[in-house]
Amino acid sequence: MTGNILGERFVVISFGESHGKCIGVVIDGCPAGLPISEEEIQREVDLRRPGTSLVTTTRAEADQVEVLSGIFNGYTTGAPIVMIIRNRDVDSRPYEVLKKIPRPGHADYVARIKYGGFNDYRGGGRFSGRITAGFVMAGAVAKKLLNYTLKVEVIAYSLEIGGIRAEKFDLEEAKRERYNNEVRAPNPIIAERMKERILEEKRKGDSVGGIVECIALNLPLGLGEPIFDSLDCDLSKALFAIPAVKGVEFGSGFRATRLTGSENNDPYVLKDGKITYLTNNAGGILGGLSNGMPLVIRVAFKPASSIAKKQRSVDMEKMEETEIIVIGRHDPSVVPRAVPVVENVVALVLADHALRAGFIPNVLNHHE
Amino acid sequence: MTGNILGERFVVISFGESHGKCIGVVIDGCPAGLPISEEEIQREVDLRRPGTSLVTTTRAEADQVEVLSGIFNGYTTGAPIVMIIRNRDVDSRPYEVLKKIPRPGHADYVARIKYGGFNDYRGGGRFSGRITAGFVMAGAVAKKLLNYTLKVEVIAYSLEIGGIRAEKFDLEEAKRERYNNEVRAPNPIIAERMKERILEEKRKGDSVGGIVECIALNLPLGLGEPIFDSLDCDLSKALFAIPAVKGVEFGSGFRATRLTGSENNDPYVLKDGKITYLTNNAGGILGGLSNGMPLVIRVAFKPASSIAKKQRSVDMEKMEETEIIVIGRHDPSVVPRAVPVVENVVALVLADHALRAGFIPNVLNHHE
Amino acid sequence: MTGNILGERFVVISFGESHGKCIGVVIDGCPAGLPISEEEIQREVDLRRPGTSLVTTTRAEADQVEVLSGIFNGYTTGAPIVMIIRNRDVDSRPYEVLKKIPRPGHADYVARIKYGGFNDYRGGGRFSGRITAGFVMAGAVAKKLLNYTLKVEVIAYSLEIGGIRAEKFDLEEAKRERYNNEVRAPNPIIAERMKERILEEKRKGDSVGGIVECIALNLPLGLGEPIFDSLDCDLSKALFAIPAVKGVEFGSGFRATRLTGSENNDPYVLKDGKITYLTNNAGGILGGLSNGMPLVIRVAFKPASSIAKKQRSVDMEKMEETEIIVIGRHDPSVVPRAVPVVENVVALVLADHALRAGFIPNVLNHHE
Amino acid sequence: MTGNILGERFVVISFGESHGKCIGVVIDGCPAGLPISEEEIQREVDLRRPGTSLVTTTRAEADQVEVLSGIFNGYTTGAPIVMIIRNRDVDSRPYEVLKKIPRPGHADYVARIKYGGFNDYRGGGRFSGRITAGFVMAGAVAKKLLNYTLKVEVIAYSLEIGGIRAEKFDLEEAKRERYNNEVRAPNPIIAERMKERILEEKRKGDSVGGIVECIALNLPLGLGEPIFDSLDCDLSKALFAIPAVKGVEFGSGFRATRLTGSENNDPYVLKDGKITYLTNNAGGILGGLSNGMPLVIRVAFKPASSIAKKQRSVDMEKMEETEIIVIGRHDPSVVPRAVPVVENVVALVLADHALRAGFIPNVLNHHE
Repeated sequence: MTGNILGERFVVISFGESHGKCIGVVIDGCPAGLPISEEEIQREVDLRRPGTSLVTTTRAEADQVEVLSGIFNGYTTGAPIVMIIRNRDVDSRPYEVLKKIPRPGHADYVARIKYGGFNDYRGGGRFSGRITAGFVMAGAVAKKLLNYTLKVEVIAYSLEIGGIRAEKFDLEEAKRERYNNEVRAPNPIIAERMKERILEEKRKGDSVGGIVECIALNLPLGLGEPIFDSLDCDLSKALFAIPAVKGVEFGSGFRATRLTGSENNDPYVLKDGKITYLTNNAGGILGGLSNGMPLVIRVAFKPASSIAKKQRSVDMEKMEETEIIVIGRHDPSVVPRAVPVVENVVALVLADHALRAGFIPNVLNHHE
Repeated sequence: MTGNILGERFVVISFGESHGKCIGVVIDGCPAGLPISEEEIQREVDLRRPGTSLVTTTRAEADQVEVLSGIFNGYTTGAPIVMIIRNRDVDSRPYEVLKKIPRPGHADYVARIKYGGFNDYRGGGRFSGRITAGFVMAGAVAKKLLNYTLKVEVIAYSLEIGGIRAEKFDLEEAKRERYNNEVRAPNPIIAERMKERILEEKRKGDSVGGIVECIALNLPLGLGEPIFDSLDCDLSKALFAIPAVKGVEFGSGFRATRLTGSENNDPYVLKDGKITYLTNNAGGILGGLSNGMPLVIRVAFKPASSIAKKQRSVDMEKMEETEIIVIGRHDPSVVPRAVPVVENVVALVLADHALRAGFIPNVLNHHE
Repeated sequence: MTGNILGERFVVISFGESHGKCIGVVIDGCPAGLPISEEEIQREVDLRRPGTSLVTTTRAEADQVEVLSGIFNGYTTGAPIVMIIRNRDVDSRPYEVLKKIPRPGHADYVARIKYGGFNDYRGGGRFSGRITAGFVMAGAVAKKLLNYTLKVEVIAYSLEIGGIRAEKFDLEEAKRERYNNEVRAPNPIIAERMKERILEEKRKGDSVGGIVECIALNLPLGLGEPIFDSLDCDLSKALFAIPAVKGVEFGSGFRATRLTGSENNDPYVLKDGKITYLTNNAGGILGGLSNGMPLVIRVAFKPASSIAKKQRSVDMEKMEETEIIVIGRHDPSVVPRAVPVVENVVALVLADHALRAGFIPNVLNHHE
Repeated sequence: MTGNILGERFVVISFGESHGKCIGVVIDGCPAGLPISEEEIQREVDLRRPGTSLVTTTRAEADQVEVLSGIFNGYTTGAPIVMIIRNRDVDSRPYEVLKKIPRPGHADYVARIKYGGFNDYRGGGRFSGRITAGFVMAGAVAKKLLNYTLKVEVIAYSLEIGGIRAEKFDLEEAKRERYNNEVRAPNPIIAERMKERILEEKRKGDSVGGIVECIALNLPLGLGEPIFDSLDCDLSKALFAIPAVKGVEFGSGFRATRLTGSENNDPYVLKDGKITYLTNNAGGILGGLSNGMPLVIRVAFKPASSIAKKQRSVDMEKMEETEIIVIGRHDPSVVPRAVPVVENVVALVLADHALRAGFIPNVLNHHE
């Protein structure tokens, strides 16, 4: 199979270019009978829309979702669902220079080599963060499916931006507050500090990185397939498809490397007559399977590569060193916009696995 | 496709159980014409063999590789290569208890639920670290293929064990020394410190975690497929299939989250008339594609779950809380044995991608 | 993977419904650098367009191809190519009855069961022959790719309609004439007879079946993958996806069952210093691989299920027997319109295999 | 994915060579909890074993099944099931000539080209009919699974051999008698005539082809996936993987091409209050889905290519024309041995689809 396709049962195909006609996505394998509307998908897309915040890019697209197939009379039909967003506010002129001078931290050079110069380089083409709008459209369906059938909730937020870490908050707060602030922080106080940090670097023409944390609740016990298609395998694979991701960890993650077994193991206990765990260093995954505890994922985002500062680069035509200032509208931090993307990408994988393991049937029978 | 299968063109199928008849692997898609012998595969397997070191488990199997198909007259034929290791030194009695009392940090409980109690629980069955012997057999072929056709080298070593980090060493040293010490450290001095650290916790009946770093050299520019099958996507997916992995990062990884764009971007420069980079924070990957710099991966291993210390657990039959002491022969740290495993798993993914991108042909034509 | 996806390297995803917004297709894996225009794709689509002939349905859609992504400056970019045809001339009213009375020979009943009644039943939805417009759009790209890189030609024609068989014609004639007559016969004389036969049954409100033969020339020797992905495996799989196909055979096909080995084997001979065969009973395939001779496939089409005659059926709501007369515009024979569909579906499979076997590179480098 | 792999959920990987160490197969995805023994698999394998009959090859192997993994305490565990048959009675000397003189009707020449001469040519290697022993081992598990969970029965028999067609018999008779005669005919009388026909050509050093018919009963309504993974798509794909198959048809098949719609459509009727059909020209498949009627498949086998008669060929080393007499032990007709192979290959596909559509769960819970 080819690289623009993800999943086994809830299959997602990504298409479209940053400055082409549209960004889009196909879902093949969504069960028939899920009630869903264009508006619900639009709502999710709006959460990552550029132009909603001072701290992200000023590209001001409406990002209007159009469903081309697979939904009929308000329900999914079992046929492929195709959704597109037409690109409207596109100014490709600043990108002409990329044909010869690659932007540091971007794929301009390697893409040119890989595709023999035939790739649509405008706005980064397929390598643009804009393709994640397609992930979100698909994820909106996945989230609805998971919640409708299994009451699964997926909640992401900015755990850390530019070194400012959200230390004290609870999940209920994060659930309520994360989309009420521009930086998708779990509470307003930390949001304010993160925002200041971003603006500080923005003023210098620079950018900051950060960490998105994602929690999934109510996963059925035993979700995940053996060995190569374990939950952590498939989640990490999907998450690294988001531009700017440089690391993924589960539960105690890299911190576990400095713990002892007796510190890191989660003891089994009984609670209300059910088997559970005293702690959750496993982050909800044992042997690649959901173990009944909340799934805990942390995703490391590098600082946005497009910065206003002058940088060293080379002129690929003249084959001489030069300097570049990246013009265009860009995010001083991708983290805030990455939050709904992470949330939806995680949902895609969980929906796929819920179908694989039989927790969601092929047809949703219901009476409404 | 199902979970025991990895890859698209160099496809690996894992099979076998810890205490069953054998551990094995199938490779489908290896090009015809690769010269390889059972001895070469055996040599790689011996590097992860238990019983070679005081710091790892004392299970003393010969781990004899048998090639069942796909190699003829010293060359691969293009047909599936099947390799097995018969299990010999197996004492399943200590595992009878797992049927009712799950070991903290292990998949015993969730596996029982997922497979309705039909799974072969002996020695952890499919969830045992022993299945990685199959990864190594397949990886031995992948490494040979990569080196034979593209001069690619894959080098892993213990970067950190129990908090002891290898700070000062160079790659040439690591290449030469890593398999000359029991802990797979990049040099003998750090090896000694890591070994002491392991033994310190071993004496307490506890275990330690650590980090394996893996470098791949000479990758062709542009290796990797778009979006969901990028190099980082597929490498992370495969690496999380190794038991005890809790995190994966590339290049500056989680550290990048605290850098600014101007610090983290790798400037383009010319060297000997060729385009290259001043730094390698990208870890050799831009836009999911190999960018011409060394690939740099770090893999976080949790401390081994099987410890001699008494731990809390539950009796699943009586549904009451209890305590467990895990008997059997186990590693106080999985990191040393994980080093060749990481190396070979990385090779599997790189070989798959080299075939996908056309850098390795379907038949190796040569004259010897 | 899910059922609307075909292929491994030249991957086709079918979407859209007969009476929904559009019919469409995604191609993932088409090499970068193929020169192709919307007009070339349109031309191929026009060959199967309804309304071009008295002998097929009178549904008079323009079937205007729109390319949404993957083509830039006249060349494929290596990114997914998405193409749609908006449905315009749609009258869904005659189909309301299908919700309760299934048409004999159609999937109405079984589709309703499978999708819990959520499927878009209008015009047959996903089970309509109209979805083959998507196959043709994708096939147009595949044909161009095969011809541009390997000079492969794919030629289909009506071999037999309603019992009228094309006995005497040559391939050059068929190549030239097949699209110059309404029934896609290999020459005008047989075309006339086939047309009369179709009209004869049309007048009775009935329909006729037939056989499409497809020849592919200039295939590279050794095209095809082992065992389950042999050329015949993958061709037959793709051809049975065309509605109304009930049989597929290669070379001497079912006739071979009555020959002896000495009659059916194709002797090897030398011609111009090259190894070739005296006959072509194999139809160009030995051991699942192209053997250097023309590929010869025959595809059996049942008579169109939608007929004007009164037929027995059941009312699924009242659960009582009833009768149905299928209203709407339908083909008295699907064979003429199936000809370009077969041609393009065969091209899809051959392009996929040419990429798999390395006969077509991932990027087409050229100078024009 | 690569060519030795079949299926999506009940995945089969074929391996081994005719004259290598073994023939084998992996099943990944078989649900946990299926009771099955080595003996049951052996019994199925014995039905295709050479040496059981005068009319097939005299190669007299025991064909002893060994299960390497995936079955524990008499039940499948959910882990990959690996089964091998060691090759014992192997005389490779007659095959040395194949290195330079290809046998007409065999893949010797094209295999040599495809694999650069590295393929194991002995006994045809991977292109030998012997690999179907692996299909049968896997099919034995699939048949048991289908029967145990859904009461599905799969019954194949020789419908026609060398022009002798079984005209008058009923399915109950075929079910009872087919394995009680050497030619796998549906009754003893026709068996006698088929046998004579085979021996007639055998005496001349020639061979005969024939048709295997396969019926599947009790399939759940709606089995099959959309478009490219329809039941007929996937069945035909799998069946063409059997060496010597040249055609596949369903229901009225090629005969349908000469019927009218009113003759070929199967009218809906009510029987015992349930929707069914008056006839079964569809062969149990509508729109690619099982429609509730018996599945009817016919598979065309060419006459065995290996014949004792002198044939024209070329010497590939000297590049000159020559003659060849194929020495070795071969079947004068492959049809009798193909019967259990067809039966089991059909079962593989049905099991895969029953899992995909959710008719069989991932774990079989039962009380015995």
